[in-house]
Amino acid sequence: MKNICLLGSTGYIGINALKVIKGNPGRYNIISLGAGENVDLLLSQIKEFKPKHAAVINNNLAEELKKKLNNFTSTKILWGNDGYAEIATLPEIDLVIGAMSGFSGLAPIYSAITACKDIALANKESLVVAGSLLMSESKKRGVKIFPIDSEHSAIQQSIQGHNREDLKKIILTGSGGPFRNLPIDRLTMVKPEEALKHPNWRMGMKITIDSATLMNKGLEAIEAKWLFNLEMDQIEILIHPQSIIHSMVEYMDGSIMAQLSTTDMRIPIAYALSYPRHLKGDTKPLNLLDVGNLSFEKPDKEKFKCLDLALTADKAGGSMMSVLNGANEIAVNAFLQGKIGFIEIPELIERTMENHEIFSIDSIDKAIEADQWARTRAKKILNTWR
Amino acid sequence: MKNICLLGSTGYIGINALKVIKGNPGRYNIISLGAGENVDLLLSQIKEFKPKHAAVINNNLAEELKKKLNNFTSTKILWGNDGYAEIATLPEIDLVIGAMSGFSGLAPIYSAITACKDIALANKESLVVAGSLLMSESKKRGVKIFPIDSEHSAIQQSIQGHNREDLKKIILTGSGGPFRNLPIDRLTMVKPEEALKHPNWRMGMKITIDSATLMNKGLEAIEAKWLFNLEMDQIEILIHPQSIIHSMVEYMDGSIMAQLSTTDMRIPIAYALSYPRHLKGDTKPLNLLDVGNLSFEKPDKEKFKCLDLALTADKAGGSMMSVLNGANEIAVNAFLQGKIGFIEIPELIERTMENHEIFSIDSIDKAIEADQWARTRAKKILNTWR
Repeated sequence: MKNICLLGSTGYIGINALKVIKGNPGRYNIISLGAGENVDLLLSQIKEFKPKHAAVINNNLAEELKKKLNNFTSTKILWGNDGYAEIATLPEIDLVIGAMSGFSGLAPIYSAITACKDIALANKESLVVAGSLLMSESKKRGVKIFPIDSEHSAIQQSIQGHNREDLKKIILTGSGGPFRNLPIDRLTMVKPEEALKHPNWRMGMKITIDSATLMNKGLEAIEAKWLFNLEMDQIEILIHPQSIIHSMVEYMDGSIMAQLSTTDMRIPIAYALSYPRHLKGDTKPLNLLDVGNLSFEKPDKEKFKCLDLALTADKAGGSMMSVLNGANEIAVNAFLQGKIGFIEIPELIERTMENHEIFSIDSIDKAIEADQWARTRAKKILNTWR
Repeated sequence: MKNICLLGSTGYIGINALKVIKGNPGRYNIISLGAGENVDLLLSQIKEFKPKHAAVINNNLAEELKKKLNNFTSTKILWGNDGYAEIATLPEIDLVIGAMSGFSGLAPIYSAITACKDIALANKESLVVAGSLLMSESKKRGVKIFPIDSEHSAIQQSIQGHNREDLKKIILTGSGGPFRNLPIDRLTMVKPEEALKHPNWRMGMKITIDSATLMNKGLEAIEAKWLFNLEMDQIEILIHPQSIIHSMVEYMDGSIMAQLSTTDMRIPIAYALSYPRHLKGDTKPLNLLDVGNLSFEKPDKEKFKCLDLALTADKAGGSMMSVLNGANEIAVNAFLQGKIGFIEIPELIERTMENHEIFSIDSIDKAIEADQWARTRAKKILNTWR
């Protein structure tokens, strides 16, 4: 029985993690649930999984939740960053599922690592902004990080049983998003609802927009660099519109290992929870006869400028990673609120990055400082937008 | 330094195995070479690799070889089945590469196993005719069998590091051969030279014809059954015309592991020799951008009747496997000599199988008995053909 803290329980990954846990009775025990603002969904999750602790984003929502729970369970309700940190570090917890979205995932994941909890990680932003710090702390404490991202799960499965010294490079695949075939001049006109229609995956809003801009692939490359201890030039990005091959590893002898499946997040979630076992699930098996063709293209870096911005930030390193990420979160929100156009997302990020003086990230506070600098700066640029 | 006996040194696999060995100086040491009738090529191999022993198929060729060698090296020249058995069981040998073609590979491979030598196996026919015997002898003696067939190498690489209990099925891929798109009524007219033009792989004559009839895929399914301890209903056969994904393994969670590479036999040969390492080679890396599409089809069992014949023989078991294989070898030869048409290959095999009374194969002698029965019977049927 693995004792679990699930951070981000009401998001897309969180909901699917609970499906996996429910589908494997006797294997996992939910000790604590962390959510943001979705009190009603958290309420029903608490009623079903009866965790010892739960946390929401602020005191008001904590009070609302307590009232609605009305002593239904003895679940202790906490709130805010301290609350998230507390539920992620309880002594009985074996594994923390980091499924919060964006920068907000960093602090509780860092707390969990310093408390020697293994991590099933969906929150790539934490590795993007503080990869060096998180990986060195994990290494020091013998903490294992199991990726939940389908691409990184594919890489982990393709590395299993093969000698690390023989690895030549990894090939991160991506669908190319909904605008892969859209002419570049039409890109100015796309609406949030179009960008939210991912061709293959159902996911949260933030990652869906990041997939449309290809920022997601850039963030994944950085995540992979840290998770698998690679140089950036060992990471190739390939567009694979069918999203069947979730990523690959090329070895020194020219042999490539790949992982394939349907686009069902329960598969990588379950693998992160049961690693290195492939437990029987109820996902639909992949039928390659139904799929037809698998095809591959180069990513269009002219059309999708976010990809190069991510790689540029990675080269710069340090606090520039938080700036990339913070500016991206502001830009994605601004796009979703209709304040900027789709092709202005990279423009806003680039202008924010231009003004940044890099410092090194040797603590969470430094990452927060860089993140806040980026958000302030990006918002300031936004205020005078056009 | 691994001490090696290479059986079948002048065939396609043998020649490529020597390229791999030459490309990895200091890793492998050729102790003995076994060839069939190609004395001139063996002569140059002996001059280059200076083995302690070499063997050819008969005494006449052995004498010819000795004369041509003219004391160039101290290589001891042997001949026939006894010669092959002797060079495969020399005390200093660590690994025997079984790269002879057809039934003739069985006896020396069996000798090597009983002498506790690990085997790098290209000769699938030996497992087809005596799989149960070879696997139980290997298990008893702790002998490891490393497959050289690209499909089985792909499966081995896809099994590495994953829990055997989690394996659901394997998916054997095959190009479909040169006649995949040929209308069934045109199949009566195809000539040996057309059948010898494999779309993707350069290989020996026997296996190339077996690929055109799909008998090869049937034999591979049987080989996989023994190598990986599977039930036949755990083996799916899928036509994949580009021969890029060399085979796959599906796990209980719906995850599929696959191995991809260019169609260069040096890759699986090198992996069998260096297992589980992927040593740096000089093969061309796979570029998925150049490949374009990967596609998948069901095998056409109506058009290619050999596939079902192989599965029928497997169901019958025992000596029927030797009959399938022996009749196929006679039929392939008859086709290459223009005695029967392409679609008559399965007909001759089926008629031979019809007349067989099955007995169990608990010794090599029994396998030889069944093989000889099949050859005699098939030749008799051939004599009154049409």
